[in-house]
Amino acid sequence: MRTVEWDAENFQVRLIDQRLLPGEFRVIALDDHHQVAGAIRDMVVRGAPAIGATAAFGLALAAFRSTANESATLRLELKQAAEQLHEARPTAVNLDWALRRVLERALQTPGSTEDLRKAVLDEAQHIADEDVQINLRMARYGATLIDDGDTIIHHCNTGALATVDWGTALGVIRMAHEQGKHVHVLVDETRPRLQGARLTAWELGQAGIPYQIISDNAAGYFLRTGQAQKVLFGADRVAANGDVANKIGTYMLALAAADNHIPVYAVVPTSTIDLTLAHGGLIPIEERDAGEVLDLYAGGQLVTPKGASARNPAFDVTPQRLLTAIVTENGIVYPPFEENLRKVVKS
Amino acid sequence: MRTVEWDAENFQVRLIDQRLLPGEFRVIALDDHHQVAGAIRDMVVRGAPAIGATAAFGLALAAFRSTANESATLRLELKQAAEQLHEARPTAVNLDWALRRVLERALQTPGSTEDLRKAVLDEAQHIADEDVQINLRMARYGATLIDDGDTIIHHCNTGALATVDWGTALGVIRMAHEQGKHVHVLVDETRPRLQGARLTAWELGQAGIPYQIISDNAAGYFLRTGQAQKVLFGADRVAANGDVANKIGTYMLALAAADNHIPVYAVVPTSTIDLTLAHGGLIPIEERDAGEVLDLYAGGQLVTPKGASARNPAFDVTPQRLLTAIVTENGIVYPPFEENLRKVVKS
Repeated sequence: MRTVEWDAENFQVRLIDQRLLPGEFRVIALDDHHQVAGAIRDMVVRGAPAIGATAAFGLALAAFRSTANESATLRLELKQAAEQLHEARPTAVNLDWALRRVLERALQTPGSTEDLRKAVLDEAQHIADEDVQINLRMARYGATLIDDGDTIIHHCNTGALATVDWGTALGVIRMAHEQGKHVHVLVDETRPRLQGARLTAWELGQAGIPYQIISDNAAGYFLRTGQAQKVLFGADRVAANGDVANKIGTYMLALAAADNHIPVYAVVPTSTIDLTLAHGGLIPIEERDAGEVLDLYAGGQLVTPKGASARNPAFDVTPQRLLTAIVTENGIVYPPFEENLRKVVKS
Repeated sequence: MRTVEWDAENFQVRLIDQRLLPGEFRVIALDDHHQVAGAIRDMVVRGAPAIGATAAFGLALAAFRSTANESATLRLELKQAAEQLHEARPTAVNLDWALRRVLERALQTPGSTEDLRKAVLDEAQHIADEDVQINLRMARYGATLIDDGDTIIHHCNTGALATVDWGTALGVIRMAHEQGKHVHVLVDETRPRLQGARLTAWELGQAGIPYQIISDNAAGYFLRTGQAQKVLFGADRVAANGDVANKIGTYMLALAAADNHIPVYAVVPTSTIDLTLAHGGLIPIEERDAGEVLDLYAGGQLVTPKGASARNPAFDVTPQRLLTAIVTENGIVYPPFEENLRKVVKS
């Protein structure tokens, strides 16, 4: 199944519960947009493209659960639902992008509330279907950058689970593998939520792609000792100048790659590019609960002292000077990013 | 008690078992140098100065357990014991330095095997006592670099537990705190063994110094957003040119600090400086068991997929260009390190 799906029989949104992987594969069904907002906030679903599609389906739920008889009333309710969904997570722009796109369609749809409901669902379904196609196009562009024999360091999870299907950066790796290139992945475990150790390792195992998990802080060692040839990751928001907000740790990884002249590629659909923000310093950075850092067991024992506190920023900003290129579904964007991102978003 | 002590009543070496902290404070007693080598290898005791002193006491155990009647035979046995202790961990040069120092004393001691035994123990005891004094001198030099109000990012554990007592980098922080400076520590959790989250957090709590634990990969965020003013760590070996081998992740941390013009200080006794190695590329880097990365639980569940593999380098090398200064017991060393390290080691 896809990471996020519309259940046309029960009028529900179905999600793979990513908090339980790799130990358990469980699908949960959501009835209304409040539940969808909660699932995004709690990271049942995560990954910028996946939360975009999920939020769009959340609006479809809001439309079908509404008892409004007037289109104007329904549009107002959709706007309110969008606001609630918008607040679930602040950094990934895909959430906003998908909500705006569905609301726009609702605004442009004349006729009855029933027409409106159908249009909203249709638009959400389009976003989801397009995401898969976009990922495949990115993967084909990105795979041209991968050489046979490459060892690739990958941060967080950017696979099928981070999207509706296939994946962004991990989709590139998967495409290169399917084209017969021998690739090996060093999987950043990605503290504190461990999306790499949990999800990326699991996806690579399923795909039969060889990998080894590393502590995030070991990436520099492999880059400096010539044991990695590429660095790949996705993004949650790209500013107009090419600065990239992505999972915490991306900045230090990109620094280590640049310090050793190893190419660094961000793989993002153009829906992740936010031309309204001049630079990365303007991207809102979510700080999550300290418990995500502190609730850690090894050898059957809680690691941190009782009463310890923590800071937990979920994202950081990688300045564009550290990127070799940004791979999109409309092509590979090289510097100067300010100029070339604009072209690729318009195309 | 000290991290490592000689038990004169029972002729044993007593160590705080650092694998059990902060959950449990347990002291273990070792009977012979084989047990000491095992304790160093298994990281019952860790931290370059602490394993140096522990290895020296290991030779004292070898001396007192030996049944040799001839001084020449005892010296040969000590040499063999030193070889076994040497192999316990390859990166920290303090291990070798302490073993060489004790063997040298044994070579220069005339008289009976009993004289030899006493001399070996005396030298080990000297190394341990000196370590505490050296740490206090480093701490006073280092504290001059800390400003009132500083937030300091600290990697791994370099406190009393990493030494015989007091600590190196953490000793500097503790001295600044005792001098009345307001300091706040962002504690790198230090995957995979989590010495920061376990030991440094515990020591800071005991000392009443405010701290927050962060994922190692979050340090770049705090440095880039102006939320940290200093970076401090210890080292396991410093090459003649100032390149520093230290706990995995130090290189990426130093890179992020340098990228934001934040001062970076390595705090090391001169026994950690290895003038026989021209640069850090010559320092042997230990790779430890993959289980240290893979055996990780969160939310009561194993994080990594079954059958996953991992890489686990325990150290990396930070090039000297990223360091602002190296703090030793003989003063603060600034660039050019090649020239100035030589002076401070000789003094």
